[in-house]
Amino acid sequence: VLKLYDNPVSGNAYKVRMMLAHLGMRYERIELSVTDRSDREERLGGKNPSLRVPVLEFEDGRCLGESNAILCYLAEGTDYLPDDAFERAQVLQWMFFEQYDHEPNVAVARFLLGWSDDPAAHADVIATKQKLGRKAIGAIERRLAAHDFLVAGRYSVADICLYGYTHMADQAGIDLAGFPAVSAWLARVAAQPGHVVIAA
Amino acid sequence: VLKLYDNPVSGNAYKVRMMLAHLGMRYERIELSVTDRSDREERLGGKNPSLRVPVLEFEDGRCLGESNAILCYLAEGTDYLPDDAFERAQVLQWMFFEQYDHEPNVAVARFLLGWSDDPAAHADVIATKQKLGRKAIGAIERRLAAHDFLVAGRYSVADICLYGYTHMADQAGIDLAGFPAVSAWLARVAAQPGHVVIAA
Repeated sequence: VLKLYDNPVSGNAYKVRMMLAHLGMRYERIELSVTDRSDREERLGGKNPSLRVPVLEFEDGRCLGESNAILCYLAEGTDYLPDDAFERAQVLQWMFFEQYDHEPNVAVARFLLGWSDDPAAHADVIATKQKLGRKAIGAIERRLAAHDFLVAGRYSVADICLYGYTHMADQAGIDLAGFPAVSAWLARVAAQPGHVVIAA
Repeated sequence: VLKLYDNPVSGNAYKVRMMLAHLGMRYERIELSVTDRSDREERLGGKNPSLRVPVLEFEDGRCLGESNAILCYLAEGTDYLPDDAFERAQVLQWMFFEQYDHEPNVAVARFLLGWSDDPAAHADVIATKQKLGRKAIGAIERRLAAHDFLVAGRYSVADICLYGYTHMADQAGIDLAGFPAVSAWLARVAAQPGHVVIAA
């Protein structure tokens, strides 16, 4: 059976669970800690160069890391990834944007606020990441002001990818009240058939 | 004609120029500053949500941002991107790894050392990024210890992507002497037909 090296609070792992749920695929969840990472080399060495979750392990032992690479692999040939070459490239554009401008700010601010020993000690870093996180969400807002979904006018892995941490922006101390198009889009994503919540 | 919003010292822009050179494609270079970013909204607004270079603008006005999304788009249907679904996913895995674990450390340490007003003021940040940059290059070293190229045993956009900043690691204050497999791979990449140097 397919194995997902997973963590219940990781938004990156959640993206993959959402995709697997949409596709109705069965898999085994293997939980790794996101606070005590001392066993990462032992458990993920040889499976993912970055030693991060999520990692998807296939029945034949092959492994794939990086949430967005996993999303693209699983979505290939389905309605969740466009066929058109330029639309596919736009999906990737938003996914790379997510990993460079969005996740390192929104996800890390959330982590420091919710899972670090002493959030107050990280106050300056958190404030900087909140500011940059708002900037990234502002870029999504501008796109969604004129589009129902990020690419090609329909729900795709680009939306799954950016939904992951955006829908938990409040846990990063980022108020989405000023982002009405993002808020409406979050509701559209959550209304998709087969949607699952992060705690599922 | 194809337009590349570009900067001569950006490794991300260099990756795209290398790909365009391999493919023998003609394009116009439009230079943006990487130190004075005050004109970014005016010049890249509507073209790339992150307002970063590189951006590729097609003759019909469509634009694509994110160096790695551009590489994948240009490489589609060529020898620089595998056909096999799992190998394509492995290419993406290394590209997302590059933007998350490698570029923010190696490229940013290089930038702070070479282009910031006062590198000494950033000494702690630079030291942290050098440490994390060595860790990322170490992950490439482990892969290349048993493989000539990152994916599928042959040169692909995964190699172009990671060559970009790895080959300038010395400018980030990272000595590659301890990474023999990486050093040998850099030479293999530089020996590819149609290779161009960053200053080209």
